[in-house]
Amino acid sequence: MLVRLRKDISEVEAEKVLAAIKRMGVGVEISRTRGSSAMIINENGNRLDKMIIKNIPAVEAVSESDNPYFLVSREFKKENSVVTVGDVIFGTGKPVIIAGPCAVENESQILETARLVHARGIRLMRGGAFKPRTSPYSFEGLGEEGLKLLAKAREETGVRIVTEVLDAIDVDLVAEYADMFQIGSRNMQNYKLLKAVGKHKKPVLLKRGMSANLNEFLMSAEHIMTEGNDRIVLCERGIRTFVEYSRNTLDLNVVPAVKQVSHLPIIVDPSHGTGRRDLIEPMSLAALAAGADGLIIEVHPHPDKSWSDPEQALSPEMFTRLMRKINHFMEWQQQYANEIPAR
Amino acid sequence: MLVRLRKDISEVEAEKVLAAIKRMGVGVEISRTRGSSAMIINENGNRLDKMIIKNIPAVEAVSESDNPYFLVSREFKKENSVVTVGDVIFGTGKPVIIAGPCAVENESQILETARLVHARGIRLMRGGAFKPRTSPYSFEGLGEEGLKLLAKAREETGVRIVTEVLDAIDVDLVAEYADMFQIGSRNMQNYKLLKAVGKHKKPVLLKRGMSANLNEFLMSAEHIMTEGNDRIVLCERGIRTFVEYSRNTLDLNVVPAVKQVSHLPIIVDPSHGTGRRDLIEPMSLAALAAGADGLIIEVHPHPDKSWSDPEQALSPEMFTRLMRKINHFMEWQQQYANEIPAR
Amino acid sequence: MLVRLRKDISEVEAEKVLAAIKRMGVGVEISRTRGSSAMIINENGNRLDKMIIKNIPAVEAVSESDNPYFLVSREFKKENSVVTVGDVIFGTGKPVIIAGPCAVENESQILETARLVHARGIRLMRGGAFKPRTSPYSFEGLGEEGLKLLAKAREETGVRIVTEVLDAIDVDLVAEYADMFQIGSRNMQNYKLLKAVGKHKKPVLLKRGMSANLNEFLMSAEHIMTEGNDRIVLCERGIRTFVEYSRNTLDLNVVPAVKQVSHLPIIVDPSHGTGRRDLIEPMSLAALAAGADGLIIEVHPHPDKSWSDPEQALSPEMFTRLMRKINHFMEWQQQYANEIPAR
Amino acid sequence: MLVRLRKDISEVEAEKVLAAIKRMGVGVEISRTRGSSAMIINENGNRLDKMIIKNIPAVEAVSESDNPYFLVSREFKKENSVVTVGDVIFGTGKPVIIAGPCAVENESQILETARLVHARGIRLMRGGAFKPRTSPYSFEGLGEEGLKLLAKAREETGVRIVTEVLDAIDVDLVAEYADMFQIGSRNMQNYKLLKAVGKHKKPVLLKRGMSANLNEFLMSAEHIMTEGNDRIVLCERGIRTFVEYSRNTLDLNVVPAVKQVSHLPIIVDPSHGTGRRDLIEPMSLAALAAGADGLIIEVHPHPDKSWSDPEQALSPEMFTRLMRKINHFMEWQQQYANEIPAR
Repeated sequence: MLVRLRKDISEVEAEKVLAAIKRMGVGVEISRTRGSSAMIINENGNRLDKMIIKNIPAVEAVSESDNPYFLVSREFKKENSVVTVGDVIFGTGKPVIIAGPCAVENESQILETARLVHARGIRLMRGGAFKPRTSPYSFEGLGEEGLKLLAKAREETGVRIVTEVLDAIDVDLVAEYADMFQIGSRNMQNYKLLKAVGKHKKPVLLKRGMSANLNEFLMSAEHIMTEGNDRIVLCERGIRTFVEYSRNTLDLNVVPAVKQVSHLPIIVDPSHGTGRRDLIEPMSLAALAAGADGLIIEVHPHPDKSWSDPEQALSPEMFTRLMRKINHFMEWQQQYANEIPAR
Repeated sequence: MLVRLRKDISEVEAEKVLAAIKRMGVGVEISRTRGSSAMIINENGNRLDKMIIKNIPAVEAVSESDNPYFLVSREFKKENSVVTVGDVIFGTGKPVIIAGPCAVENESQILETARLVHARGIRLMRGGAFKPRTSPYSFEGLGEEGLKLLAKAREETGVRIVTEVLDAIDVDLVAEYADMFQIGSRNMQNYKLLKAVGKHKKPVLLKRGMSANLNEFLMSAEHIMTEGNDRIVLCERGIRTFVEYSRNTLDLNVVPAVKQVSHLPIIVDPSHGTGRRDLIEPMSLAALAAGADGLIIEVHPHPDKSWSDPEQALSPEMFTRLMRKINHFMEWQQQYANEIPAR
Repeated sequence: MLVRLRKDISEVEAEKVLAAIKRMGVGVEISRTRGSSAMIINENGNRLDKMIIKNIPAVEAVSESDNPYFLVSREFKKENSVVTVGDVIFGTGKPVIIAGPCAVENESQILETARLVHARGIRLMRGGAFKPRTSPYSFEGLGEEGLKLLAKAREETGVRIVTEVLDAIDVDLVAEYADMFQIGSRNMQNYKLLKAVGKHKKPVLLKRGMSANLNEFLMSAEHIMTEGNDRIVLCERGIRTFVEYSRNTLDLNVVPAVKQVSHLPIIVDPSHGTGRRDLIEPMSLAALAAGADGLIIEVHPHPDKSWSDPEQALSPEMFTRLMRKINHFMEWQQQYANEIPAR
Repeated sequence: MLVRLRKDISEVEAEKVLAAIKRMGVGVEISRTRGSSAMIINENGNRLDKMIIKNIPAVEAVSESDNPYFLVSREFKKENSVVTVGDVIFGTGKPVIIAGPCAVENESQILETARLVHARGIRLMRGGAFKPRTSPYSFEGLGEEGLKLLAKAREETGVRIVTEVLDAIDVDLVAEYADMFQIGSRNMQNYKLLKAVGKHKKPVLLKRGMSANLNEFLMSAEHIMTEGNDRIVLCERGIRTFVEYSRNTLDLNVVPAVKQVSHLPIIVDPSHGTGRRDLIEPMSLAALAAGADGLIIEVHPHPDKSWSDPEQALSPEMFTRLMRKINHFMEWQQQYANEIPAR
């Protein structure tokens, strides 16, 4: 059970509520309050307890469900959330395609990519300036230099920029250049980082951790929302299983599963999710058919020269072909939605 | 390396080939021959060895790839295989939808289901007469009585029947009534059963094991093919992972991964794959978008009275809605294929 | 909830009990009775229902726990079960070491192995005559010829024999030669086979399936016990995970987890569980320290010439060394048990 | 292939070596140098390339293996590493037991715990001041106040302190109070944090990520070592699998697998690894039998009042019993090592 206190409640009053609930003897775990928008967790209250707690004047809301999250839930907000990044809008029913290279390598590479994806209708480009790398001997990105090149690409072509931020300390720097933060898989539970982007107003692309279950995934988004930032787009990017034919197991089931319980948009990353160029087209269409609010796809002007993950980046020709098919598919989706109203 | 001998080669000649290869000192493991269509496995031959072996007159073919399977591979057969079950055809590009209840419960239930699915365009019905059940206290199916009811449903409506066979000893009995054998997940590596259906001429629906990787899945099909039956349809039905929001993790990545290396058709079971009624529609469309050759879906005239897996069977109304969407989607696929030729 | 009927209850009376329970409106799933020792499953009864049902004269027992199994549980039998195979006894506190080759290859190999393991104190030998093989091109065992060689090895050395049975149809044949049936991982849910060995009096070594959870593992044992055979030894042999450094992930946690809820002995197979010769010694000791009732270990007189799984069989020298360490360890266990009584 | 340059090589000379290797045309990925102790990665060099590169004067060493790590490997350092924390020494053959509460809650709790573990022979205490919590509503630790209480406990009892650091920015603060840094599972791939502790001289307890394979685990240690800190103790704490009877699957196989390839000590955390109080004793002994260099165990003076993870903390009585058994076991290990020399 989650108990939200009213925003204007002081720390002292919040402690009184806590004490009152403790006296009821209902809780197994009660969190300390966080500022005045305090909330309390309590694992085993019954219906009566819930009613009593609800009537405490300082209490704003008590969650009805057993879910450990609240702000990200449909209980908190029934209708789908819409997240805007410039003129790009997630959550409207029309999927958003993000494309770009794994990493920013140099000026000509990123400008060439920006032009090619823009020419194919892309309005939001990805590109890593800070790269988390398993090996300390691998290329770790150009850092601020990379951010500047991304900004230059935006200036020239108008594409908006989403780029990864690896550490709370870099959030302000990345915010200077990027239109949207990306939190990578390995950082899905880096709570200091989540809070730091939660305090910003910029939208956040939150990637699922490699072995995160649904509760953990949504709880990471809840960490961001409790800090005040509700501009969150979730991203499925493959989970770790025993399977040997794909780098990760892209789990499309999470798309309708998230939509059932949360109002947040969710997109899919078939590039990291499969790690196989030849699986990107079928899994992109499958993701959209499963209801994803968008895709994020790796494209490189010369994949074989890519500094990282060359085996999963699409060439310009493959990307052109993919976008033709995606656009054709999205027309069908639109047409079907018009012809046959939802239940 | 796989070495296929010519079909007319005698056991004695086959042993000579074996001896010759052994003398070359190339092998770590050499299998005993299986009848005259003998084959040999050899883990560490090099190019030169391969060339020499290929030139032995008794040898028909030596596989070029490192794959442990041969007959199911595109190396053996380049074009897609087509599998017919009466007037139902798998592998033509137009997906086949199989529907029906988890288990045959009684005459009225199975006839009612047959009529309802037939009325919505279904030509192949599923329904279990022999049910593998985790608990010895669960309903294990009506056995032969169930098979008779399935045959009756076929007689009345014309739908073809696919039903599970659990044991080699039941293969002849099931063959009397069914149009297609189903091998369930738990039996994917029941090699005696695979061989038994391999000796029949009836088509086989082979479900992937819960933790089978791609090689193991295809090797089970290879077991069937080595016995002479090449009428095999593969079926993805969810793998076991850490995920908590679906009963299994339906792994659509396997669809394009199979198509890359094998000529066999592959369909998808979103009912067992997700175990959640509300995930069936999005995952059905996703499966078709990923390139699946069909779907197998649980429908029950009164899901809440279903004797097994009630939480995953669709009601007639939900099934009607699903089929409308699937048909609309398949029209788009067809149209796209006509408008824009494949690469 | 599980309801056991008294053994002398007729099918007609059992149906009456079923009808009575149905009239109470408590059940979601009620199994058909199995002979006169009928049992009923019912997913959602409450305490009151339980009390009423318990008082039906035909009812012998109603399980108090929510576990789906009963006969294998400590609720049914509090003290540890003891399973004897000739003079070998599982479940006494002193671990039993089983050793032998993966497969019976020929007379000299199996006799040599029998002598070598016997000389190191082994009283129960493993050795496969029927081998389940992923590839149809792999050696599938010598069949009955292999069983005869195993019997010969017993005759000469006195070691008892445990060997795998792959199919219900082979149970009588295997029973003629073997002292203990082995059910392999791939057959843990081959229910026809489980029932067939359940009708025999011979003890059964039941290996855990590759992705079986605890309930499924114990339910397979329950299948055997409902047929009347309670001489069951469980065996952990590694589960399938994402891990890349061992062929499977030997899961020792299952040993104390089983002991908590079941009275059956459980042993561990570090050979298949790790697939790495260099991991067998540490994981053998770890298994015993975790409370395993024994080990089953692959030994081959000439591992590099082994026809199957050569990379995991111990050489005679390695096995000698291992047994010395195991014996030393078991002395410590014994001494500790004597010095310091259990809680 | 990893190429280490001599320490005295300048950035300019390092670039020359890079250029020379590029001219050989051997590499697919060449990392930028990191200071003067530069290293280069190159995925596909052959034996000849290796020999040529080795002879470049600026090159100190070229790794012979295909492993992606070098400093943590036995190739780099053959004998076991020994890591000291005050008078506590990891890696000598005598296991080190770390104990303490999940979180520091208040002065009396942490002092009481320090006294009780100290009285049972513990010289290194755990206790979290910064807690990573899935829920933003859970207790996140006392922060610096908690660190001060830990220091007070050390002052009073003499136990050394290991405590988690969550973010690079906190490293200096934690270093003021702690004797050893702990990097938690969720931060195993927080490279900024790894580098920050790598620049310190304090020892580091590096926990394995929930779905980290062996390479990734060791590569995270390599990140720390490349920064100059080689005082690393690895820790297995359970991986995420499908298993339902333990919170995680404690994977003891990793202990001998690590020892095969790395010189670093590795300990085991049965508390988080199983999440079940009743599994801690058997799995603790199993871990030691598998060769672990130590254990880290949760103890709480009043487990039922613990603010986090109450179901896995041992009570003082249970801990006393466990330590008695562990000490008895370690005596056996010592005795065996003396009586029977290693191979």
